[in-house]
Amino acid sequence: MDAETSSRILKAVDTRFDAQVEFLAELTRHPSTRGNEQGAQDFMAAEMAARGLGVDRWQIDVDEIRHLPGFSPVIGPYEDAVNVVGTRVSQSGKGRSLILNGHIDVVPEGPHEMWDSPPFDPRVDDGWMYGRGAGDMKAGLASNLFALDALAACGFGPAADVFVQSVVEEECTGNGALACLARGYRAEAALIPEPFAENLVTAQVGVLWFQVHLKGLPTHVAYAGTGANAIEAAIPLIAALHGLEDRWNAEEHRHPAFAHVHHPLNLNVGKIVGGDWTSSVPAWCVFDVRMGLFPGQDMAAAKAEIEAVLAEAARENAFLRNSLPEVVYHGFQAEGYALGEDESATAQAAIGALEAAHGAVNSGGALDRLSITATTDARFFGLYADTPALVYGPRAEAIHGFNERVELESMRRVTQATALFIADWCGLELL
Amino acid sequence: MDAETSSRILKAVDTRFDAQVEFLAELTRHPSTRGNEQGAQDFMAAEMAARGLGVDRWQIDVDEIRHLPGFSPVIGPYEDAVNVVGTRVSQSGKGRSLILNGHIDVVPEGPHEMWDSPPFDPRVDDGWMYGRGAGDMKAGLASNLFALDALAACGFGPAADVFVQSVVEEECTGNGALACLARGYRAEAALIPEPFAENLVTAQVGVLWFQVHLKGLPTHVAYAGTGANAIEAAIPLIAALHGLEDRWNAEEHRHPAFAHVHHPLNLNVGKIVGGDWTSSVPAWCVFDVRMGLFPGQDMAAAKAEIEAVLAEAARENAFLRNSLPEVVYHGFQAEGYALGEDESATAQAAIGALEAAHGAVNSGGALDRLSITATTDARFFGLYADTPALVYGPRAEAIHGFNERVELESMRRVTQATALFIADWCGLELL
Repeated sequence: MDAETSSRILKAVDTRFDAQVEFLAELTRHPSTRGNEQGAQDFMAAEMAARGLGVDRWQIDVDEIRHLPGFSPVIGPYEDAVNVVGTRVSQSGKGRSLILNGHIDVVPEGPHEMWDSPPFDPRVDDGWMYGRGAGDMKAGLASNLFALDALAACGFGPAADVFVQSVVEEECTGNGALACLARGYRAEAALIPEPFAENLVTAQVGVLWFQVHLKGLPTHVAYAGTGANAIEAAIPLIAALHGLEDRWNAEEHRHPAFAHVHHPLNLNVGKIVGGDWTSSVPAWCVFDVRMGLFPGQDMAAAKAEIEAVLAEAARENAFLRNSLPEVVYHGFQAEGYALGEDESATAQAAIGALEAAHGAVNSGGALDRLSITATTDARFFGLYADTPALVYGPRAEAIHGFNERVELESMRRVTQATALFIADWCGLELL
Repeated sequence: MDAETSSRILKAVDTRFDAQVEFLAELTRHPSTRGNEQGAQDFMAAEMAARGLGVDRWQIDVDEIRHLPGFSPVIGPYEDAVNVVGTRVSQSGKGRSLILNGHIDVVPEGPHEMWDSPPFDPRVDDGWMYGRGAGDMKAGLASNLFALDALAACGFGPAADVFVQSVVEEECTGNGALACLARGYRAEAALIPEPFAENLVTAQVGVLWFQVHLKGLPTHVAYAGTGANAIEAAIPLIAALHGLEDRWNAEEHRHPAFAHVHHPLNLNVGKIVGGDWTSSVPAWCVFDVRMGLFPGQDMAAAKAEIEAVLAEAARENAFLRNSLPEVVYHGFQAEGYALGEDESATAQAAIGALEAAHGAVNSGGALDRLSITATTDARFFGLYADTPALVYGPRAEAIHGFNERVELESMRRVTQATALFIADWCGLELL
């Protein structure tokens, strides 16, 4: 691509950037927590249609994906799990095809009083947009569409098929991305602008979710000594799980990509609920755990080890010994993925193209590699579809926390780099 | 009372005992958990009216009782807090008046799968009736009414005014009994057939409920080290509260009535809830605590000590130090009460009358005294209305637990003893 074309593309992003910020605000106004994604998906489908993309919108059918590698078990109805994919078919077809992926679901915003301003009423302050999902990852969804817009404004389209995906379920299972694979969406590379501060993610951990169910024999609290307290029974189990976390994080066990990462595998007790009545010894308690895994770590062995640790701790407890905890899996059974281990020519070419695009936007600055302690949908493309998946997105802060925010200038640079990457990877054709 | 009258009264209870068991089953079928007492109160009001009692039914007005000693703070609406009192006005008025009190509310039944049979579908097996509330304390409510029935069947009524109370809120505040006092219901003694195995309760602990609210600064679990986990922050606070429990239970601190009771003051973490999302470090956690107090122990001092213990533990915790827990009081602020310390002639006479009635039913067996590690509504009569309150009811097991049950022959004996006690205390008049 000549310098003049590159310059025109960068300027085209600038020209539309106010509109892109307004698009991001509008998208962030949709409180697309799990089960409530429809309004945001309506918006995405309309924006895709307005751009002339062929819009495919479908409800995920669990029965069509449950046998596939990477599937995560779900509880409850799936009627509200709807993906949207916009397709642009190239006229020339001379380049390399591309998936531009992003997820529409956001995590719960938590107590509103802990936000400085309403989480779904986005505001811009000092160059940052605040709001639940603004960073994770609606800025990325905006970037995908506005990168294509910039090319179109210059009179170009990608010279290969491009699929713009707005998927659900990234934050709990990844089944949205998996359903796209099952529906036949494939390309020669995928780009996912998750908010990792303009680094290229070359390794991501796996994530396993599980629930621990405890049951006790409650009595009137007057006789508390004879009744097992299911809430307090959770405490030694949580301690035992942290012991496992320490062992898995030990230096000798680390995946090379995480050798220098401080505590790469985080165990999180994310939810707890137990008991019915203050003056009854609680009969039951359920807590929800998230645990990280290294790339290559066997999921079945990890589950077996977790179950063994829980059973061992339970047997040391007078009450739990007679009422062993039940481990229930739903949500993430996500394997780790390391793009950095993909030595294929396609992967090297895709990384090279992104590196060049990043450098063009950042005065020749290097594209830093990052090993992240979270998962992304990249694993589906990389592990199960032989497609290198580049995770590269804007800078955001407090994702999953209060006052989540994304840096707007970072979103601008990512959009520009994405447009240049598309132009390079797919090539350009005249509209 | 002559032996023949006594014998006729005992037989009259026997004659109606099948009907009493059916009454108990019907009452137990009403799932009168907090907020759902109306159906059971309809039934009680109808049964009282059918017996010719004057029925008074009213909604508790918090503003009318909040200034009274013994009031416990409540959260939420009170529209469904309705008491029923049936009054029998004596024609002769020559005896001593009496309140027959019982509570209609039952604690939550918990997970149904942990019951051997449905908790609100009572069944009789081997002389026990199973069901939530059968023992605590619908058998007592049945006993109160069927004791009066037995007298009536013999052609007698009590020779003093009798007030049959079916109150709400015993299991969380006691505001139902307090509202009866505020409405003007007074008598020279009160009998409450709570299920303490035909013992006379001569001391009961106080009970304080409080909630501990914790707030954290959640982040994506990928950065768990920087986010405070509000669920795990509860663990050292619970440990600190158990330390306080140990100190309060130390022998040198015990009230004399509890000198020989093993661990009289129980601290119970009865409920917990926290977190919104498995992969977000939880921002908040709330746990509910019940703590016992000795009779005479100052409520304000107890609260101050609890708050100090929590604050001290919080200051030793890196996260909590910057986000001190909030203690919220709602529910029980119940003082302890010791009938055994009431040296008044009225109390001695009432105890003597019950002792005689108990002996008459139990072949001269002694009426054993019991110090209980729970509270009852007796405190309102004893502490705030100068009225000795006799807690004496049937044998029950697993109250507040699964497969709660009451022994039917025990209910029969209590009903008989109650009928004889009424005849003695109030005297008899011909109908």
